[in-house]
Amino acid sequence: MTANNKIIDCTVRDGGLVNDWDFTPEFVAELYTALNTAGVEYMEVGYKNSPKLLKGNAGPWRFLDDNYLKSVITNKDFTKLSALVDIGRVDEDDILPRADSMLDLIRVACYVSDVGKGIDLAKKFNAKGYETSINIMALSHVLEKDLVEALKEINKSPIDVVYIVDSFGSITPNNIGYLVSLFKEHLPEKTLGVHTHNNMQLALANTLEAANHGVSFLDSSVYGMGRAAGNCHTELLVASLKDKRYEMRPILDIIERHMIKIRENWEWGYNIPYALAGILNEHPRIAMALRNSADRDNYVDFYDKLTSPESVPTATGAKG
Amino acid sequence: MTANNKIIDCTVRDGGLVNDWDFTPEFVAELYTALNTAGVEYMEVGYKNSPKLLKGNAGPWRFLDDNYLKSVITNKDFTKLSALVDIGRVDEDDILPRADSMLDLIRVACYVSDVGKGIDLAKKFNAKGYETSINIMALSHVLEKDLVEALKEINKSPIDVVYIVDSFGSITPNNIGYLVSLFKEHLPEKTLGVHTHNNMQLALANTLEAANHGVSFLDSSVYGMGRAAGNCHTELLVASLKDKRYEMRPILDIIERHMIKIRENWEWGYNIPYALAGILNEHPRIAMALRNSADRDNYVDFYDKLTSPESVPTATGAKG
Repeated sequence: MTANNKIIDCTVRDGGLVNDWDFTPEFVAELYTALNTAGVEYMEVGYKNSPKLLKGNAGPWRFLDDNYLKSVITNKDFTKLSALVDIGRVDEDDILPRADSMLDLIRVACYVSDVGKGIDLAKKFNAKGYETSINIMALSHVLEKDLVEALKEINKSPIDVVYIVDSFGSITPNNIGYLVSLFKEHLPEKTLGVHTHNNMQLALANTLEAANHGVSFLDSSVYGMGRAAGNCHTELLVASLKDKRYEMRPILDIIERHMIKIRENWEWGYNIPYALAGILNEHPRIAMALRNSADRDNYVDFYDKLTSPESVPTATGAKG
Repeated sequence: MTANNKIIDCTVRDGGLVNDWDFTPEFVAELYTALNTAGVEYMEVGYKNSPKLLKGNAGPWRFLDDNYLKSVITNKDFTKLSALVDIGRVDEDDILPRADSMLDLIRVACYVSDVGKGIDLAKKFNAKGYETSINIMALSHVLEKDLVEALKEINKSPIDVVYIVDSFGSITPNNIGYLVSLFKEHLPEKTLGVHTHNNMQLALANTLEAANHGVSFLDSSVYGMGRAAGNCHTELLVASLKDKRYEMRPILDIIERHMIKIRENWEWGYNIPYALAGILNEHPRIAMALRNSADRDNYVDFYDKLTSPESVPTATGAKG
């Protein structure tokens, strides 16, 4: 762990997958102030997808708008702002030049099979002056040969940061070193990042192990708020990095005043169906569906279905 | 991780610290059957303390009695039984010769300052034919010089297993390797064990890292049930060791039929006060007291008290 670490708090973006982005502008403004006081380097404030290209209406944090953002975060200071985009869901004409925008970093989420499109998109954001990252999802479902080819292409691009994303919460600390070595070998020019999920209660351990191996962009969420089992907890990461830049106290204040109440109304974090999805290296959507059904605590049946030779394999579709 | 790993499930013993050992004999019998079917090597079924030497009445799992145990676990098979004793709280005359007892392993919990008494006690159990361990608590509050002297004494004794106990949930995976090296250096004759707490969501990661370094006795509890933040989860450990001996399914059945209901009535697991106790390397008792008060979610006040220069240091008294 070095002074080069950057924390990207994803509470609004990944947490929005839990509560359909039901965050008030007051909450987002307070969270910004807390993260800024805590010394957290980036706040990912949502998705910069286009409502024209995506069904559903989930408010301003799924379809970020610069004017609205300016009205909410009126005290922009040390903490930079980041947005995630999905391939095919972003309208490039929506993206202002960085000089006119509240955003500093745009991250492109993509699967290995879409990496060419991901690179093209990220290059356009680079040309508009943004810092960029490419976040390769579902790594645990990818052939190493295909991954290596994708990394070689990314290495030739102007993209700044390349992310190891444990979409299914199935990676263990023992495997992190191997993945980091692979990324370093084929991305000698790039900064690396990591985004973990807590299905096996390994999100913090995996993040710290990645940092030990030289990964510098570390994703987390306050109180772990993120899809299904959630993410590495920002409060634990800030404490564990033991860096004088970071203050845990403003994060605790947000948890006390907001997150406990949000958690009473929305579920995320460790439970047995999410653990099983991680252990069995499956997309969490089937576990999320179970948790929304009357069978939510029928673990043995769920285990039997997941491990039966007749079980239907899941498609990869949702985002990590 | 090797075939030498042994899991010791501490649900009844450490979980009893959560619910005052409010376990029915039917639950304990079912848990035994589940652990046996799951391939878990040991079940720690309680404390073998003496009601003559300890105040309070918390039933048969705090004051184990062989005749009662025989009436509850009627199908003893592969899974061995273990009990924990505290120095000064056990009546040696209560302990039958192993040939006449349901117990196989007796573990002595002690602080470094009491290690002489711990060795004497464990030797007597050894002489009665039991497997023995000494579980050195509160390691994170001990001078290395004192620890090394204690380890050297233990190495001369007939005790079988020596435990690294992270009583306060404050140890990180980065420190586990160092502690294991220290124990190995001064205990070349001994088998090592590890008992973790989940304050920082690192219990599984610490246990796996200890196993990577050659520690073979691994403590856990079903659904993590143990004092305060709880322990490494048995269901996750069984899955993570990836050993054909272990089956997760019987553990899932116990969680589904029993643990969810127990968890609704009794609190353990991750929360902010327990996280702060771990981060600040404090005994959890002040956090447990907070959780039992009206201030249970006043995290910032609690943090300020714990980190104030005027705060009263905690004594070491309760067991890890």
